[in-house]
Amino acid sequence: VPHIIVEYSANLEEAVPIAALVADVHRAVLATGIFKLGAVRTRAARRDIFFIADGDPDNAFINVIARVASGRPLEKRRGLAEAIMAVIERETAALAASRGLALSIYVEEIDEDGALRKNNLHARMEQKVALGNAAE
Amino acid sequence: VPHIIVEYSANLEEAVPIAALVADVHRAVLATGIFKLGAVRTRAARRDIFFIADGDPDNAFINVIARVASGRPLEKRRGLAEAIMAVIERETAALAASRGLALSIYVEEIDEDGALRKNNLHARMEQKVALGNAAE
Amino acid sequence: VPHIIVEYSANLEEAVPIAALVADVHRAVLATGIFKLGAVRTRAARRDIFFIADGDPDNAFINVIARVASGRPLEKRRGLAEAIMAVIERETAALAASRGLALSIYVEEIDEDGALRKNNLHARMEQKVALGNAAE
Repeated sequence: VPHIIVEYSANLEEAVPIAALVADVHRAVLATGIFKLGAVRTRAARRDIFFIADGDPDNAFINVIARVASGRPLEKRRGLAEAIMAVIERETAALAASRGLALSIYVEEIDEDGALRKNNLHARMEQKVALGNAAE
Repeated sequence: VPHIIVEYSANLEEAVPIAALVADVHRAVLATGIFKLGAVRTRAARRDIFFIADGDPDNAFINVIARVASGRPLEKRRGLAEAIMAVIERETAALAASRGLALSIYVEEIDEDGALRKNNLHARMEQKVALGNAAE
Repeated sequence: VPHIIVEYSANLEEAVPIAALVADVHRAVLATGIFKLGAVRTRAARRDIFFIADGDPDNAFINVIARVASGRPLEKRRGLAEAIMAVIERETAALAASRGLALSIYVEEIDEDGALRKNNLHARMEQKVALGNAAE
């Protein structure tokens, strides 16, 4: 954790480079310093069929769900939401000037009771750092 | 908010016009009168790989998640669920007579603590109304 | 219920037969004996755009969300998580030896207050059993 899901209406693709935006969201989440490098998983979910507000096909949305382990203080969760919003607001600013656009972010706490994880990325990230140091 | 996600097994596409169904769900949500026009975002999520019950490839499902701001009375949330169910049940009735079909709707309240939104649609919807009135 | 969603990074498709893995998850959920046959709906959600940890394009993830009716004892929910993990861990073991891989499972309880369901699969499953018995 965290799991970051960037859901978007497909009509944004003509105006916004989505993969770059998702990469920037990923970097912004890492830059908060709240999470370990090996824990962050960011992905996009494209929606091809959508109806927003009055149904104008130019209306668009980005909706980000960030699922984090429970127990972090509220200020950290709000800081995460703000870091993500800063990215998506900046990268859609030109579009928002001329089209309907709804941006939203929800940071949700995971119920750890029913959670199970197996993740080799923590060990691999440490190994890459060690290899990098050894090469210096 | 609300965020309405209509998830469906891809084998419904041969029998049900999905985009029309999703549009009808969107209209039904608006017609409840619970939400502002600029707030409603309805989209579909198609599932290409699925196994339902005994795995018969004709078995199908529609699962709607409606995420609403927290604090609304239960009767409003149940009214929303019933309005959506009325649409998807009616538009799949012919199919349900001959195939396995599971319909479900879950209205969920959003944790507002971790929520952030930027939405220009409210202002745009009011502007369109004003323009429409001016044109009359 | 349950609703089982197997979300995965698209770069797994070259290494893991995803449809077979999802079918095996479905069978494992049924084999727990916790749920009725007609209630289980398992599907995959493919993610084409993703950034994991240091962003190495070989890094991969599988994230399973199992949504169950609320009120089951914790040991059943954990048993479900373990049954699913056993499948996805076994079927990705070769890959985990050489690539970054994050596996996760979250069993979540549904808020029944806002839930509505119409499901003809229970009746159909009983009918199939009856037909099978009659044919013997």
